[in-house]
Amino acid sequence: MVDLAAPLSPGSTIGILGGGQLGRMMAMAAADMGLRCAVLCPDPQSPAFEVCSHSVVADYDDIDALENFASLVDVATYEFENVPARTAEVLNHRKPLYPGPRALAVSQDRLTEKNFITGLGVDTAPFAEVSSREDLAGALATTGTPCVLKTRRFGYDGKGQVLISAPGDGPAAFAELGASPSILEGFITFECEISVIAARDVHGNVRHYDPVENTHRNHILKRSVVPARIDDETRARALAITTQILDGLDYVGVMGVEMFAEAGGHLRVNEIAPRVHNSGHWTQDACITGQFEQHIRAICGWPLGSTDRFADVVMENLIGDDVGHWNSAVQNPNSKLHVYGKSETRPGRKMGHVTTLSRAK
Amino acid sequence: MVDLAAPLSPGSTIGILGGGQLGRMMAMAAADMGLRCAVLCPDPQSPAFEVCSHSVVADYDDIDALENFASLVDVATYEFENVPARTAEVLNHRKPLYPGPRALAVSQDRLTEKNFITGLGVDTAPFAEVSSREDLAGALATTGTPCVLKTRRFGYDGKGQVLISAPGDGPAAFAELGASPSILEGFITFECEISVIAARDVHGNVRHYDPVENTHRNHILKRSVVPARIDDETRARALAITTQILDGLDYVGVMGVEMFAEAGGHLRVNEIAPRVHNSGHWTQDACITGQFEQHIRAICGWPLGSTDRFADVVMENLIGDDVGHWNSAVQNPNSKLHVYGKSETRPGRKMGHVTTLSRAK
Repeated sequence: MVDLAAPLSPGSTIGILGGGQLGRMMAMAAADMGLRCAVLCPDPQSPAFEVCSHSVVADYDDIDALENFASLVDVATYEFENVPARTAEVLNHRKPLYPGPRALAVSQDRLTEKNFITGLGVDTAPFAEVSSREDLAGALATTGTPCVLKTRRFGYDGKGQVLISAPGDGPAAFAELGASPSILEGFITFECEISVIAARDVHGNVRHYDPVENTHRNHILKRSVVPARIDDETRARALAITTQILDGLDYVGVMGVEMFAEAGGHLRVNEIAPRVHNSGHWTQDACITGQFEQHIRAICGWPLGSTDRFADVVMENLIGDDVGHWNSAVQNPNSKLHVYGKSETRPGRKMGHVTTLSRAK
Repeated sequence: MVDLAAPLSPGSTIGILGGGQLGRMMAMAAADMGLRCAVLCPDPQSPAFEVCSHSVVADYDDIDALENFASLVDVATYEFENVPARTAEVLNHRKPLYPGPRALAVSQDRLTEKNFITGLGVDTAPFAEVSSREDLAGALATTGTPCVLKTRRFGYDGKGQVLISAPGDGPAAFAELGASPSILEGFITFECEISVIAARDVHGNVRHYDPVENTHRNHILKRSVVPARIDDETRARALAITTQILDGLDYVGVMGVEMFAEAGGHLRVNEIAPRVHNSGHWTQDACITGQFEQHIRAICGWPLGSTDRFADVVMENLIGDDVGHWNSAVQNPNSKLHVYGKSETRPGRKMGHVTTLSRAK
């Protein structure tokens, strides 16, 4: 593992694994500060390729391509948490990789993640390991029903998970997930789902954005609203939990932490994402420093920028055909349209987002 | 001449003549809304090439290249006012060119520009045409000394102009400008130099940004501060003058109008720039809609976005070696560093800028 010896100067090159909208918005934030980006992605139509200096079409496990990629860049980062461990290792042998391998290891495995979080003294929903059919009965006793069985690895946007309504459905659910090592998660009754986007620099300084309130549709984030409807005390606790997680991972870069706020303000962490986060897209339009710039600053060894927020915001994702409504978005002078330049519109695919700003009180 | 038949949708391609920092920032604003850019510039190292979909290295008078460029794009624009008339004509024969040819014709010639402005009933500094040595005596009588002799065409950042301290220096100054068709401009005593950045859409709607106060160093913009130190009445007059100019040119896009504010608030227009403007760079960091996005919205036939300003701002250009101070800029969490990715640092060259935001009162 290598670390940055000194802050990178403009003209340096950042390597980004993944060429989707997150990579694209990171590359644009970097370009704005005179930093170049090399993007590695297996898809030749990657949205990020249009706005970066070097495009590398290669699989994430193509070691030769990774070695060459490492030689092009001064620091490396990623837009998705499912970076294979070997990929991270190859890059991090040659150049600093932020967030570091520990953040990847923890967030790639739902069980490791939950154990890490509860190990910090922070609550999650009730959960239990399901490595084999034999674990089901005990696990169901821990969580009760209904509950959700999720693969420990490679799940996102509702993929790799099955709802269990009654204990007898357990074996079928486990079979549906291919008998993969899994985790059973209980339901909790919450008032709202929030997330905290925050960053930590190479010296351990942390800056948070205001907590966001999120609404999902078909397991995909549909809408984020800031400020979240939580009281000051809950807000302070949400920020403190996020700091604990960042410090616990000796983290560098931006992270998204999703939490459930129960009645009375009790918080349970749902999951962490070691990257810029969809529920933080509003920050680039309503804060001095947006999350993409903040991430780039952190991984370049720069000090973090102010996260002060100038407006109240509603962010709506444009999912699938929603992007056809771009014209109604641009009719509102207080709305900002973001479209990711994807070559094909597909149901459930994130095509863009719209942030609508109103003056903060 | 062709005009847009309908608003362009995301996925459309914008053609930009000129690949410097203005083209680069326009291309990034376009990309953020899912619009592609093709940039034509003779310099293969153009900063805008790194962030656009199509790079075309060609001279501005290469008719074949322009015809091909026109076939790639849905609308065309430019980052500099000295687009040759023939170039504009070739493009505008095939695709809409915004701002239109009249804006170019007026702003390319200091005399035409001054006559256009005074024709609107708006004051300028005293001026007189100098087409030959014989015009000098009469012109000097109009302006008095000291005064400045400027070529009518192709001057920028102090190039193509000579100070005349005493009437006897006139002939030498005219010779120094190669006896080019020129204009003599008198000095005025002003309290401050301001500019108004504004946009007009294809339907004639106008939105202004708050007037900016500018300081130059060696004829190059060094610092812009918003709000400008002018009273409300002067501010209103500055916006009204700008609207008159935009309407008078049936303008589409963003324009910068530089003015002198005299004691008592009387305004004289110095010059107009039919493009995004250096003194408007702060808008992308402190307004809902920055000038680059606004320009793209206008030329795509979209409605204009809000120009509401969330912060007071100081914008400092990084000229030549100033860019070496990037590290001190990023120490201030309320500052935003912009570096243009130019391949070579040269004295007098605009390398980047820093905006520092403070909460608006």
